[in-house]
Amino acid sequence: MNGLHLIADMYRCTCTADLLCDQSKLEKVCVEACVNAGLTPLGTYFHQFMDENGNKAGVTGNVVLAESHLAIHTWPENNGVTLDVYVCNYSRDNSDRARQTFNEVTSALAPGEIARHEVIRGEINTATMASN
Amino acid sequence: MNGLHLIADMYRCTCTADLLCDQSKLEKVCVEACVNAGLTPLGTYFHQFMDENGNKAGVTGNVVLAESHLAIHTWPENNGVTLDVYVCNYSRDNSDRARQTFNEVTSALAPGEIARHEVIRGEINTATMASN
Repeated sequence: MNGLHLIADMYRCTCTADLLCDQSKLEKVCVEACVNAGLTPLGTYFHQFMDENGNKAGVTGNVVLAESHLAIHTWPENNGVTLDVYVCNYSRDNSDRARQTFNEVTSALAPGEIARHEVIRGEINTATMASN
Repeated sequence: MNGLHLIADMYRCTCTADLLCDQSKLEKVCVEACVNAGLTPLGTYFHQFMDENGNKAGVTGNVVLAESHLAIHTWPENNGVTLDVYVCNYSRDNSDRARQTFNEVTSALAPGEIARHEVIRGEINTATMASN
């Protein structure tokens, strides 16, 4: 269960507006970032939000990975994005792959400001296993 | 973008083994917990892992919500589960709904030990908006 969870809240993204608004474009960036880093997408679910005028108005989605998941949500009205990249290290240490994925998606969105958190997941169990 | 992200690593889950191993059972618990709490599932992607003998060997999945997402990964070999429930408070405060969802899934899994984290998401942007 041991793994690394990278969390980011991104503000004032300077990418083109369609990357924040268009489900297919954002999904492509996310899946490609995972594949480029050597992670293994198993499937995705991305949803296109529409505004009252029928215009694309934001995206929420998830890439389910053999190594855990990437989740992303956009707020085009204020150029904001929240991103999670969580990998477990079941058969190998995927931390560098998580960081590469995270950096590639972040670079594409080009935020003016970013608030980051890192959470080490499953550490109690790892300690327990190590002591057995 | 302001929201609440509940994170749990659960150990020594005492639920029946099939809840950790069977994709359809775990997906049902997760979706129902979201609905019961008043959250809005838009879609799901759950994956069934199989072992080398063709037996069910774990589940990874995600419920994409109008309010953000629920993500879950199981490790039946050591009765472990990681759970994320993240809700944004775009049109209303969904924090109580997130906690209810989290508690219902956690109760179903019945862990002997749980490591929890809470991350407040999007707070910089909220502060910026409040000052405008």
